[in-house]
Amino acid sequence: MKLKERIHRFLHDEKLKRKLYVIIFESDTPAGKLFDVILIACILVSVLLVIIESLKGLPTYLTTPFVIMEFLFTGFFTFEYLTRIYCSPRPRKYIFSFFGIVDLLATLPLYIGLLFPGARYLLIIRAFRLIRVFRVFKLFNFLNEGERLLTALRESSKKIAVFFLFVVILVTSIGTLMYMIEGTQPNSQFNNIPNSIYWAIVTMTTVGYGDITPATGLGKFLSACVMLIGYTIIAVPTGIVSASMMKEYKRRRDKECPNCHRSGHEDNAEFCKYCGHSLDPSETKAEEK
Amino acid sequence: MKLKERIHRFLHDEKLKRKLYVIIFESDTPAGKLFDVILIACILVSVLLVIIESLKGLPTYLTTPFVIMEFLFTGFFTFEYLTRIYCSPRPRKYIFSFFGIVDLLATLPLYIGLLFPGARYLLIIRAFRLIRVFRVFKLFNFLNEGERLLTALRESSKKIAVFFLFVVILVTSIGTLMYMIEGTQPNSQFNNIPNSIYWAIVTMTTVGYGDITPATGLGKFLSACVMLIGYTIIAVPTGIVSASMMKEYKRRRDKECPNCHRSGHEDNAEFCKYCGHSLDPSETKAEEK
Amino acid sequence: MKLKERIHRFLHDEKLKRKLYVIIFESDTPAGKLFDVILIACILVSVLLVIIESLKGLPTYLTTPFVIMEFLFTGFFTFEYLTRIYCSPRPRKYIFSFFGIVDLLATLPLYIGLLFPGARYLLIIRAFRLIRVFRVFKLFNFLNEGERLLTALRESSKKIAVFFLFVVILVTSIGTLMYMIEGTQPNSQFNNIPNSIYWAIVTMTTVGYGDITPATGLGKFLSACVMLIGYTIIAVPTGIVSASMMKEYKRRRDKECPNCHRSGHEDNAEFCKYCGHSLDPSETKAEEK
Amino acid sequence: MKLKERIHRFLHDEKLKRKLYVIIFESDTPAGKLFDVILIACILVSVLLVIIESLKGLPTYLTTPFVIMEFLFTGFFTFEYLTRIYCSPRPRKYIFSFFGIVDLLATLPLYIGLLFPGARYLLIIRAFRLIRVFRVFKLFNFLNEGERLLTALRESSKKIAVFFLFVVILVTSIGTLMYMIEGTQPNSQFNNIPNSIYWAIVTMTTVGYGDITPATGLGKFLSACVMLIGYTIIAVPTGIVSASMMKEYKRRRDKECPNCHRSGHEDNAEFCKYCGHSLDPSETKAEEK
Repeated sequence: MKLKERIHRFLHDEKLKRKLYVIIFESDTPAGKLFDVILIACILVSVLLVIIESLKGLPTYLTTPFVIMEFLFTGFFTFEYLTRIYCSPRPRKYIFSFFGIVDLLATLPLYIGLLFPGARYLLIIRAFRLIRVFRVFKLFNFLNEGERLLTALRESSKKIAVFFLFVVILVTSIGTLMYMIEGTQPNSQFNNIPNSIYWAIVTMTTVGYGDITPATGLGKFLSACVMLIGYTIIAVPTGIVSASMMKEYKRRRDKECPNCHRSGHEDNAEFCKYCGHSLDPSETKAEEK
Repeated sequence: MKLKERIHRFLHDEKLKRKLYVIIFESDTPAGKLFDVILIACILVSVLLVIIESLKGLPTYLTTPFVIMEFLFTGFFTFEYLTRIYCSPRPRKYIFSFFGIVDLLATLPLYIGLLFPGARYLLIIRAFRLIRVFRVFKLFNFLNEGERLLTALRESSKKIAVFFLFVVILVTSIGTLMYMIEGTQPNSQFNNIPNSIYWAIVTMTTVGYGDITPATGLGKFLSACVMLIGYTIIAVPTGIVSASMMKEYKRRRDKECPNCHRSGHEDNAEFCKYCGHSLDPSETKAEEK
Repeated sequence: MKLKERIHRFLHDEKLKRKLYVIIFESDTPAGKLFDVILIACILVSVLLVIIESLKGLPTYLTTPFVIMEFLFTGFFTFEYLTRIYCSPRPRKYIFSFFGIVDLLATLPLYIGLLFPGARYLLIIRAFRLIRVFRVFKLFNFLNEGERLLTALRESSKKIAVFFLFVVILVTSIGTLMYMIEGTQPNSQFNNIPNSIYWAIVTMTTVGYGDITPATGLGKFLSACVMLIGYTIIAVPTGIVSASMMKEYKRRRDKECPNCHRSGHEDNAEFCKYCGHSLDPSETKAEEK
Repeated sequence: MKLKERIHRFLHDEKLKRKLYVIIFESDTPAGKLFDVILIACILVSVLLVIIESLKGLPTYLTTPFVIMEFLFTGFFTFEYLTRIYCSPRPRKYIFSFFGIVDLLATLPLYIGLLFPGARYLLIIRAFRLIRVFRVFKLFNFLNEGERLLTALRESSKKIAVFFLFVVILVTSIGTLMYMIEGTQPNSQFNNIPNSIYWAIVTMTTVGYGDITPATGLGKFLSACVMLIGYTIIAVPTGIVSASMMKEYKRRRDKECPNCHRSGHEDNAEFCKYCGHSLDPSETKAEEK
């Protein structure tokens, strides 16, 4: 019964939890900062390990240390993940947050890799943990910019969805047309419709590998038309995002001071020009706490 | 004489017509929704059939069922097309509308394919029927976005036309110049002017297949110039569309409430902030009915 | 002495001049319109002739008629050019205008081609005469759009020039760096600096032929960096042109009525909303005449 | 002791310094202009020398004169660099300015090249000295445009940094995924992760060399998805820069007259429309001196 009690006590040790929380989730204290720097270094090294491992000419005496290091890193990340769940005030919220899922996915592939060898390379998903780097180095502004970027994109997501459905339908039709024109040639690379659709996408997006190219005159003419269409079409998402971003800027300009409720501040103003209050609404909330 | 009368009665059976109309054209009732979902599934399957059929490695025992299924789908679409004409209150308007033409084109290729085997692949045009998907799932907003996109594009269509004529003339001239420079080389791929124009389009649009590339020093220098020109030119349609889209946004902002005729609403406002009336003019029309 | 007098009279026959002017320069009368349509048809046919002639598989019995037709067309264009000079009220202005120079260049290559055979293909410059098509079919609006486009571009020409000098310097440096890295490889395609600069331009503009590609790891890494830089740099001319075009739109919005001098009209307004006068300043000038 | 005194006097000869300063740093006097024109000619010739030298087919009797000329140019640039330091009123500021560093780097490679032969090609860095061309030909407006461009870019640099980190993480993940899919094929070009990441960058930036292309169906499907993603992503930096540039324009419009402090001038206005004072703030400063 003693062990059970101990576990219970451990699971409800609020002091320890808060201490760990400050170290793991925050980066204002020296310990918290040190932890975050070590974490980012570990992520970088483990991502590099996966990349280096894929090189064919790697000497065999390096294989064993690499496998050992990978297990060590995965063990560390697993331990860290469990600790995060343990010390988080709302564990569920953390588990289903973006970072929670990435933290979990960063540990799983090695365990899955014991069953399916190839899956080990999925460890590369750890790279997404590097987004934390902004938080560690107090680059909040960067994260704000990222959020504004996302807001601008999210607002235009409907337009982009309509645009994509249209592109998919167009590409399917053009691919089939090219298959009908070029597919009859001997040794043609347009040997089936999926390949032709692949060609249409390669062409419309102006990537142009050149692994599949038209050989007949009619095929070349149609290709030229597809390119000129793609040329105009490439302007549409750019236009959507540009317009969205302009709106974002304008909205920021029209932002109200949370204190005196007057607007008309400069774009990069951080304090109200009438009352000197910070224009960042999140700080007002922080004060109210 | 009895048959004639029956046909006449059938052709003027307004009750049946309305019932069918609700099922086929609308998707608010369970029956209407079911019909639309089945229709979209059929379109998707039949498009996939055409694509799969083009794969060379397809086992021969699948050929017969595929042909049968294609006939079944075409039969169903033909029947649906005729029913749509039958139950539409204004059949002519439907026949010459965008969807009416697509619905017809979605059935013809198989019949033409009986005469010209290759034409069967044109069945892929059915893909365009998938645009209905937005209506079925009540994604009206998406369609609205699409319309706004089209409005923005239509407004800049004149500019784009001028731009295209200019590009065509430029590309013809550059192609001929490259033919004069590179065409004299043995085994040159610039062996005639149409091929050189094709190369110029491939280069100006930044697709760059690499199937035709300059070999001489002068040819490479001219190519580099063409690329740098294309680099600047690609900015023009983007600029046109961006500016157009910005105007669209502004116009929406300036939109008047259809009830109290006051303007100045937020971009994504759906109700007038003064009188609470819906800002969507189409709804006002619906009310007036 | 009689001949001299006749020539003098002919050169000062104002009636004939005005008559010819209406036919050749304008297209409001049936004769003028007919002349312009014939002219455009001739240009199109002669451009097509040049293109077809370059095809290698052309049967030999077509060579003679083609040469004859080319001489006929050139004769017609030369005669037309001289007539234009003759009937133009200010011949000098015409000769040194854009169309005057193009009209001259459209006739010269065949004459030069008698000395240098290859030069004949320069006849393709006739394609530029097709810009007249807008005037003939009363597509003035299109020309207006073209002018607005040019105004927008001209205003940003300084920025684009600075941008280009920067790109040229960047491309030279990157090309030399790649020559130092890749040039030592056996059979490398980076075998001299001009080729490497050509590669740098092909890469930065995202054309990417693939005729010259890096082989070493360091070369690939540098290429990847160049691409990502090119990715951001491609945004600059687009941004310049977009911003320029937006200004253009705004200026049009702010346009004053030439009659009552009030502004604030809608973008696509053609008449003043206060006094009903046309907003097109060119028409006001026409009235004043 | 006499020599020491002479050196001391030379180092503090303010008259000579001012005279040299006017010639070397400014270009308003005939001597200053002449010096700048000669300097630019020297830079151009020496850059061309480096490029020509890399051509393989160069006759051997040209090697010696080329080496001699390179030493002469480097000697001249070294002397010029030392003179600039000598006559600059604040030598430190010059040494650590952009042009100071470029001027130093323009001379070093030849000296380093005596030890490491390949390093000589770094002389190409001289090309950056050509930016002076704008100053010499009084193209200040161009430099202003360049600065405005840089301001616009600098403001969006945070957004672009966030965007780049995201692209790097995305490209690493996609590259690894493709390595897992395509790497098992015999003779696959996706033979290690770095190569696959290189492919991902080549594809996402729409360069598309075609030296590495997917061979399997699944690989082609994933490639198509990557291209369509890249298609949308290419819109983001363009949108950022466009929006930034629009703000720049607007700010200029809102600029105050430095004399009467009224704003609302036209975009390209150079003088206040109320008091006629120059709107260029730098001129006001010059007057105050």
